[in-house]
Amino acid sequence: MVGQANTAERRNDALFESLRDLLGDRFSTSAAVREQHGKDESYHAAMPPDGVAFAESTEEVSAIVKLCAQYETPIIAFGTGTSLEGHVAALHGGICIDLSRMNAVLEVNGDDLDCRVQAGVTRKQLNEDLRDQGLFFPIDPGANASLGGMAATRASGTNAVRYGTMRENVLSLTVVLADGRVIRTAQRARKSSAGYDLTRMFVGSEGTLGIITEVALRLYGIPEAMSSAVCSFDSLEGAVNTVILTIQSGIPVARIELLDEPMIDAINRYADFDYPVLPTLFLEFHGSPAGVKEQAESVGAIAGELGGGDFRWTDKAEDRSKLWQARHDAGYAAMALRPGSKMWPTDVCVPISRLAECILETQKDVQASFLIAPIVGHVGDGNFHLTILVDPDDPKDIAEAERLNERLVHRALAMEGTCTGEHGVGSGKIDFLVAEHGEALSVMRAIKLALDPANLMNPGKIIRM
Amino acid sequence: MVGQANTAERRNDALFESLRDLLGDRFSTSAAVREQHGKDESYHAAMPPDGVAFAESTEEVSAIVKLCAQYETPIIAFGTGTSLEGHVAALHGGICIDLSRMNAVLEVNGDDLDCRVQAGVTRKQLNEDLRDQGLFFPIDPGANASLGGMAATRASGTNAVRYGTMRENVLSLTVVLADGRVIRTAQRARKSSAGYDLTRMFVGSEGTLGIITEVALRLYGIPEAMSSAVCSFDSLEGAVNTVILTIQSGIPVARIELLDEPMIDAINRYADFDYPVLPTLFLEFHGSPAGVKEQAESVGAIAGELGGGDFRWTDKAEDRSKLWQARHDAGYAAMALRPGSKMWPTDVCVPISRLAECILETQKDVQASFLIAPIVGHVGDGNFHLTILVDPDDPKDIAEAERLNERLVHRALAMEGTCTGEHGVGSGKIDFLVAEHGEALSVMRAIKLALDPANLMNPGKIIRM
Repeated sequence: MVGQANTAERRNDALFESLRDLLGDRFSTSAAVREQHGKDESYHAAMPPDGVAFAESTEEVSAIVKLCAQYETPIIAFGTGTSLEGHVAALHGGICIDLSRMNAVLEVNGDDLDCRVQAGVTRKQLNEDLRDQGLFFPIDPGANASLGGMAATRASGTNAVRYGTMRENVLSLTVVLADGRVIRTAQRARKSSAGYDLTRMFVGSEGTLGIITEVALRLYGIPEAMSSAVCSFDSLEGAVNTVILTIQSGIPVARIELLDEPMIDAINRYADFDYPVLPTLFLEFHGSPAGVKEQAESVGAIAGELGGGDFRWTDKAEDRSKLWQARHDAGYAAMALRPGSKMWPTDVCVPISRLAECILETQKDVQASFLIAPIVGHVGDGNFHLTILVDPDDPKDIAEAERLNERLVHRALAMEGTCTGEHGVGSGKIDFLVAEHGEALSVMRAIKLALDPANLMNPGKIIRM
Repeated sequence: MVGQANTAERRNDALFESLRDLLGDRFSTSAAVREQHGKDESYHAAMPPDGVAFAESTEEVSAIVKLCAQYETPIIAFGTGTSLEGHVAALHGGICIDLSRMNAVLEVNGDDLDCRVQAGVTRKQLNEDLRDQGLFFPIDPGANASLGGMAATRASGTNAVRYGTMRENVLSLTVVLADGRVIRTAQRARKSSAGYDLTRMFVGSEGTLGIITEVALRLYGIPEAMSSAVCSFDSLEGAVNTVILTIQSGIPVARIELLDEPMIDAINRYADFDYPVLPTLFLEFHGSPAGVKEQAESVGAIAGELGGGDFRWTDKAEDRSKLWQARHDAGYAAMALRPGSKMWPTDVCVPISRLAECILETQKDVQASFLIAPIVGHVGDGNFHLTILVDPDDPKDIAEAERLNERLVHRALAMEGTCTGEHGVGSGKIDFLVAEHGEALSVMRAIKLALDPANLMNPGKIIRM
């Protein structure tokens, strides 16, 4: 064992020397840098990598991966560290490749409504860059995540009900494979039937099949008119049924978000709002001025039939920003309910017909628990979040959060849902994939083995090898 | 060699006996049945399988695949035989599994806007089944294809500009793998981040990774109002720029199809229309009555600026049907221009900013050729078809069609496009994938090897092993 440890150390020494030769002071083994790169925004314990390589090009990522492959060392990609299921934790040590310096917008093709960016460009940076051209990229997971990270985790968020998720909005990817080869997954055409859909295979693969270094994305024209509204309901069913009827009627609502009573209470306190503490929908409409008006009237009529109050309108850009920032800060607002707590942010997605039932049963679980856990959800997709507030150092809290999370996941699976609608698997949901996928998990394992036979790409995430 | 042939024959005999035991007279080796199953709707030569198995359940497909695997015999899935790139030709012999008897609509979930069907259900059958519930499935490749075949070939068609392709509209698949195991690729939830996107991996895999036996699909409410229009332009650029501006303006046009002069001439003759022989757009708008009116006015204004004439409106359901049936019959209309000819229907897809240039250069090629080849396209996606009319028995025709096709594909690739937007690879486009994908093709090969190591699933399609 001592001999093995020495061999591993010598191997690390040689790899570190090669990485310093390649990157100079852009390779760091300082404790602070490593600590920062082993941690996401959730309760998951930090697992620092052995070193952090700050790459500036696809070629550099390829060179780093080749060195790591040579020394049989795990490789973990890092964007902004805003994932929630332990995605960046170095469970088996290894080298973290930080892509944040790869932050160039490489091309914007206005006529084609597409662009290509380096993986480290964040969604807010891209949207600032696009604004002058009247374009925007809609996918918004809340955090100002990197687009490489958003592709790698198949991010979605509040706009998904209208614009889809990263699955629908990535046109192609540049990927460094486990042996350092570089591929482009597709041409720039809007659609193609030319072979297997490698783009979709890497979207959501969480760095376990390769490292995404460039992302080509669909863009949209900024709508002529945008309007947001808040509507309180006397029951959760009323709110959810309003969503179901809205979607069924083909009303192209841009955002339709549900907040339960504890969550609206948390947001009132955090953002200094005064919404009634009732099940509440936050809505947004995009379109022509007449179209937005018509959509709003149609949804208002549906809500009125189902116990919804009047819409409180927010038309000014700055008020809209404040509203949606408050929605994005839901996690922080929740944490403020229990000072000093961390969040265990779990999410599931079910067919929308089962959504009210799934949320009500979950609320019952939470009410019977000693932990606080507000609910907020992208209900147009059937997706909702339970933000369990825990003291990560208290084993009783962790055990109870685990229990609530497990019950939630099995409830969702029993309703033909999925164990995660948008947060991803990481290590946090890895044990639920057998129950969700059964035999199909063996196909995922076969793909992983085919592309990363030595299991060096973000090992311990999605699939146990 | 004689010994080998005898061994192969003995193997076939044993397999045939087992298949007859399993299926009775639902296993056929008659010449007529085999001939019909070795042929698609294009110029590709018929390559009949050695036998045809008419399956009635996923379990039967699994049993057939297990037998074929045991006897190392190729397996080709067959839906309606309406593919266009030689997808169903038994290039290496083997057993064709005909799925047309698996034609049950298994569930329709109105609240969730989804359904699950057996692979042999055709799109028209499904839409007839859905009509009473006010729902429809929009993807329409022209032919009345089976939904399993449409998933397997990543079909799209005229509505893709608004509703996406099979890529966006398949929720999950039941698949029989090369060793006979059965998997379901995803739960019924609208979105998921729970592992690799197996659904998208099988969509477009053309039966080379497994046999799709059930398809879960997204559905849509039938729009309150639908209206179609035809608009002639004095130039092709004017028509294409109208499309670009329409898409950029975020107008949610449901269909926007371009026909060049030879194609509008062919359709006038075939369907007894009298449209001016000019570059022409067929359009369709879906939405609320006010929304449809607003969309139509906006597009009309754009077209007017760019050399478009007045819209000729078609609001009555039967007239709309006639218009779109004519569009769907474009291939037959083209063939009628040269009686006795077959079609070599090729398609490419380019970024829309390059579309006018790509079509104009292609028209020039065609004008300099001795063959007739009209153009029609789903121009909202940058996708168009060149329907080359050939006498398949004339080597000069075939050589010239090959030359036109090759030039078209390389033109599209040079414009960052793809060698096929929707027809797929089959055997017809197989030699272009190296030029399109480069190193990425080796990743497709690795996936194929991982899932079908003996290369029994539709061998000779997509990837040469």
